[in-house]
Amino acid sequence: MKLEELAKQTGAEVIGDGSVEVNSVSTLEDAKPGQVTFLSNPKYIKQLQTTEASAVFVAPGVSTDHTNLLRMKDPYYGFAQAVVLLHGHRKHPHQGVHPKAFVDQSATIGQGTVVYPGAYIGPRVKIGQDCIIYANVSIYDECVIGDRVIVHAGAVIGSDGFGFAPNNGIHHKIPQIGDVIIEDDVEIGANSCIARAAMGSTVIGKGTKIDALVVVGHGTKIGEYGMIVAQVGIAGSVTMGHHVTLAGQVGVAGHLNIGNLVMCGAKAGITNDVPDQTNLMGVPAMPISLGRRVYTQFVKLPELHERVKHLEQQVEELSAGDDDVI
Amino acid sequence: MKLEELAKQTGAEVIGDGSVEVNSVSTLEDAKPGQVTFLSNPKYIKQLQTTEASAVFVAPGVSTDHTNLLRMKDPYYGFAQAVVLLHGHRKHPHQGVHPKAFVDQSATIGQGTVVYPGAYIGPRVKIGQDCIIYANVSIYDECVIGDRVIVHAGAVIGSDGFGFAPNNGIHHKIPQIGDVIIEDDVEIGANSCIARAAMGSTVIGKGTKIDALVVVGHGTKIGEYGMIVAQVGIAGSVTMGHHVTLAGQVGVAGHLNIGNLVMCGAKAGITNDVPDQTNLMGVPAMPISLGRRVYTQFVKLPELHERVKHLEQQVEELSAGDDDVI
Amino acid sequence: MKLEELAKQTGAEVIGDGSVEVNSVSTLEDAKPGQVTFLSNPKYIKQLQTTEASAVFVAPGVSTDHTNLLRMKDPYYGFAQAVVLLHGHRKHPHQGVHPKAFVDQSATIGQGTVVYPGAYIGPRVKIGQDCIIYANVSIYDECVIGDRVIVHAGAVIGSDGFGFAPNNGIHHKIPQIGDVIIEDDVEIGANSCIARAAMGSTVIGKGTKIDALVVVGHGTKIGEYGMIVAQVGIAGSVTMGHHVTLAGQVGVAGHLNIGNLVMCGAKAGITNDVPDQTNLMGVPAMPISLGRRVYTQFVKLPELHERVKHLEQQVEELSAGDDDVI
Repeated sequence: MKLEELAKQTGAEVIGDGSVEVNSVSTLEDAKPGQVTFLSNPKYIKQLQTTEASAVFVAPGVSTDHTNLLRMKDPYYGFAQAVVLLHGHRKHPHQGVHPKAFVDQSATIGQGTVVYPGAYIGPRVKIGQDCIIYANVSIYDECVIGDRVIVHAGAVIGSDGFGFAPNNGIHHKIPQIGDVIIEDDVEIGANSCIARAAMGSTVIGKGTKIDALVVVGHGTKIGEYGMIVAQVGIAGSVTMGHHVTLAGQVGVAGHLNIGNLVMCGAKAGITNDVPDQTNLMGVPAMPISLGRRVYTQFVKLPELHERVKHLEQQVEELSAGDDDVI
Repeated sequence: MKLEELAKQTGAEVIGDGSVEVNSVSTLEDAKPGQVTFLSNPKYIKQLQTTEASAVFVAPGVSTDHTNLLRMKDPYYGFAQAVVLLHGHRKHPHQGVHPKAFVDQSATIGQGTVVYPGAYIGPRVKIGQDCIIYANVSIYDECVIGDRVIVHAGAVIGSDGFGFAPNNGIHHKIPQIGDVIIEDDVEIGANSCIARAAMGSTVIGKGTKIDALVVVGHGTKIGEYGMIVAQVGIAGSVTMGHHVTLAGQVGVAGHLNIGNLVMCGAKAGITNDVPDQTNLMGVPAMPISLGRRVYTQFVKLPELHERVKHLEQQVEELSAGDDDVI
Repeated sequence: MKLEELAKQTGAEVIGDGSVEVNSVSTLEDAKPGQVTFLSNPKYIKQLQTTEASAVFVAPGVSTDHTNLLRMKDPYYGFAQAVVLLHGHRKHPHQGVHPKAFVDQSATIGQGTVVYPGAYIGPRVKIGQDCIIYANVSIYDECVIGDRVIVHAGAVIGSDGFGFAPNNGIHHKIPQIGDVIIEDDVEIGANSCIARAAMGSTVIGKGTKIDALVVVGHGTKIGEYGMIVAQVGIAGSVTMGHHVTLAGQVGVAGHLNIGNLVMCGAKAGITNDVPDQTNLMGVPAMPISLGRRVYTQFVKLPELHERVKHLEQQVEELSAGDDDVI
């Protein structure tokens, strides 16, 4: 593809020679002639002078005479489009349901959906169009999957919520009669687990992306366009707004309301409701402005302790002095 | 089912019209006529005046003239029984071992046990009666599973413990010649991993319930009636008593003794032996009464730091004043 | 096997009767006559006087007249060799690729490699010799696995990295065109997930051992002979040196450089580059010498707070006294 054609299709402006041929993408560091790359983090701007790439997606204001540039407001998005245009998404080795998958005869699967070997699709499951269900995924009975949903290998959807009624020291299993609804354009990471609701539905909102080894508890509702990074654990009956980002290993306690556009740093533990547009960090999770100050002091605790000890000595001396005066 | 019949079978007292027909369960908020629900958290008591449910399980002392009540000491347990009576447990789409499962010919599987497609049951594994082994579960050689055990999709039982002997910078694998014993009435969550012992047995005690994505290390023994919430990690050679509850994402270091009736809050890190009937929280895990005070002060660290700075100024002024006096 | 033969093969010195027959291994506590065990933790030295074992691997300087000893510098390594000699590694119930596995016709699998039922080996995957791919493992297209690699049940290798370009509130999937390279002698734990690189390769270095439920992000390179304990999460584009040990539930943020011979305590959160030979602990991860002092003070925060309160009272009184003086 000619660079000018790539620029046109991605909405970038060519600075340099639009007639060069580009055929694949790479990193700034590894790119060879014929390859396209991107610069989004200014930290790496020096590599712009040494890269062998035929073109680099850059933000407005970045310039070089070393190589051709594809300038646009969001160079990372331009690059993402270039990967799709030059490489495309994965080509599947088969179409439809692979004979080594199991699909219950009461399940329905939309046109264009690919089901890999070893996947299990239970009774009355509904899967929409153009989905990809990778190898060894398990989807329990009655779960509903929208269109263009990607479920990575080993993920489990609709296993029983962790619901027991204790009585005389015995945990009695409560049948989990709800289901899971995965809306359109969701991606679910490898070996993640989405529990079915005790009653009603566990819901993963449209366009939400979930990474590997995440657990979502029964009855929890994740809003649209969430980003849930690896190993996050969300307990049951949580309601989350749209565009919520939870970084790796975050935990969310049960029965909470998390607002829209909330962001939460890695390893945080959310234990209270969170208003819209809040940035959180820490255990317990707190607004990031407070959190930064708390953790700054936390790592200086030995020093603070020394200062208090020193104060105690001074005050003791002062008190002794006072006694002398009196 | 008539309400009076449901009351009789669950041990509740009907306040209102015992002759109404009930056919399913729902939440206080969503219930429609013909449905039964429950109130166990007083926070939701207002919904008792607006619910459309035909009957509500409530604790002694709760009353309303808005709907029929099923009063009993433990309304949540009553409700749990109602779910079983009105909905029952999952009906499996097949009986016995599904042809798309793999069961080694030396394995034995008890009557009434259901093995789903994609499950792998290795050599000399023994599985008791009335178990459910869901899709894509893997059970390694020689593990022993009791009666009425439920293993959710993707769980792995008996994979090798993480045992290596370092020598000259190389980690030499130690064959893990032990096994895993899962006692009766245990439930193991989706994609959880129970490692086999290096020698002897890893044991999950009778009636213990394990949530999704939990890891149990080699040689660890969990007592009876434990509750192990999602993403908990228990290292090897830990011994835990009965009725231990570990909330989500807790970690337990290796070779520890955890007593009976211990409860530990989410994300805690247990690094020492724990006596019976201790409630823990925090990293490192500490008794909850201490933990609450520690974390109260933790989030006020910037304020404490300011107070110390202010004290230092005051003491400096006082010292200067003293000098003046002297 | 005669004890003297075992000693010869493990490089130990026999103290006692080298002619006794030994046939299996056990723990100090459970060993019976005919069994060999080891003592590496001096904490258990008393058990040397009561064990029924026929021989015990011990370090130089340890002696007893109660049983035979196998003395060597590293008794745990000696014992590990004894387990291999007396018990051997797992005997597999079949050879080669099991008919219930799926191997794409473009994949290549080396001699001596065993592929268990339910495993999925995608297009153009290359697997070396003498590997073990356990049940329900999923290996995506184009991943490269070395020789003598062990992948435990349910692990996923080469699923898409978590790469999206946000634009107008929508997360656009970036095709992950890289792969995963697993070098020789690596072991990967049950249900762990190794994401494929966006571009280039995610690499697990030779001899590295990864426990269960670990996630490795896209483009991350783990050096040789690492030890990655259960539930560790390593974000994308991290570069780690050789002999790095990460204890359970550690998290590593993206784009970091971790040096050689780094050790990090359980549950720590690594947020910055780490120089060679550093021991870390805590959240945020800090050198262990600092970390110990920080956490010592952390659990004493309520006391520190009381001391500051007391100081404030004293200083107020002193100030009042000063005023009086003035």
